[in-house]
Amino acid sequence: MGAPFADAVAAERAFYQAFAACDLQGMSEVWADNRETICIHPGGPLLQGKTAILESWREILSGVLPPRLRHRELRRFAEGMLAVHLVEELIAPHGAPAEEGTRILATNVYRYCGDSWRMMQHHASLPLVGQHPPDPAPIATLH
Amino acid sequence: MGAPFADAVAAERAFYQAFAACDLQGMSEVWADNRETICIHPGGPLLQGKTAILESWREILSGVLPPRLRHRELRRFAEGMLAVHLVEELIAPHGAPAEEGTRILATNVYRYCGDSWRMMQHHASLPLVGQHPPDPAPIATLH
Repeated sequence: MGAPFADAVAAERAFYQAFAACDLQGMSEVWADNRETICIHPGGPLLQGKTAILESWREILSGVLPPRLRHRELRRFAEGMLAVHLVEELIAPHGAPAEEGTRILATNVYRYCGDSWRMMQHHASLPLVGQHPPDPAPIATLH
Repeated sequence: MGAPFADAVAAERAFYQAFAACDLQGMSEVWADNRETICIHPGGPLLQGKTAILESWREILSGVLPPRLRHRELRRFAEGMLAVHLVEELIAPHGAPAEEGTRILATNVYRYCGDSWRMMQHHASLPLVGQHPPDPAPIATLH
């Protein structure tokens, strides 16, 4: 396993770095090794458990050139060893500007798992209407 | 405001009761009165703040007969005053069996807000493929 992630933000950064680099090993290090983990890709079914989740990422990340990817946190709920981030993702094919990519909204859930923060849930969806709402209010961490 | 909700499960029950009854007042009582609240309907844009969120529910719940709705919690992450529930919703038109309805996956976030647990986020999406995965592992509350 790679270096532990000191907080949910570090785990999230590693998640998107692995995604952008098509780095399955990096992706594996981010996810909790736990049957409780959940992944829902845009329009996709419910995937449960690290094995099924990594298999889906292997399919997504294999045989493609690294996408252009930007992400920004829109909202954060955190308490103790649990954190929830609502994230806007912009994903474009290799070579295209991320800003012109597909906009996805994801709710990411992280937990501290003994040695590191890890991803417990990634729930992503594609807004089919209203693609460009106004900028959100500033990020607030609610304690 | 209605009676406070003693835990996230009570708030969630009230949310789905209000949805199923087309009860906008009940819906209003569930949501935190907070600019930080987030609602994403299936395929819809990011809605922020109780005013915008309740307006969307007014549009959804107005002028229709109460839908048939079932929900079940698939996964729960909870710590202190923060809870995250992954929920499967089955929604059918009035008079049709909920079991034959549209299947939606929702990540609901709740917080204890001084006097009551309230909904902070509802992120719903429509699985376009793989509508019928196997039953999930038993619900686990991770502390």
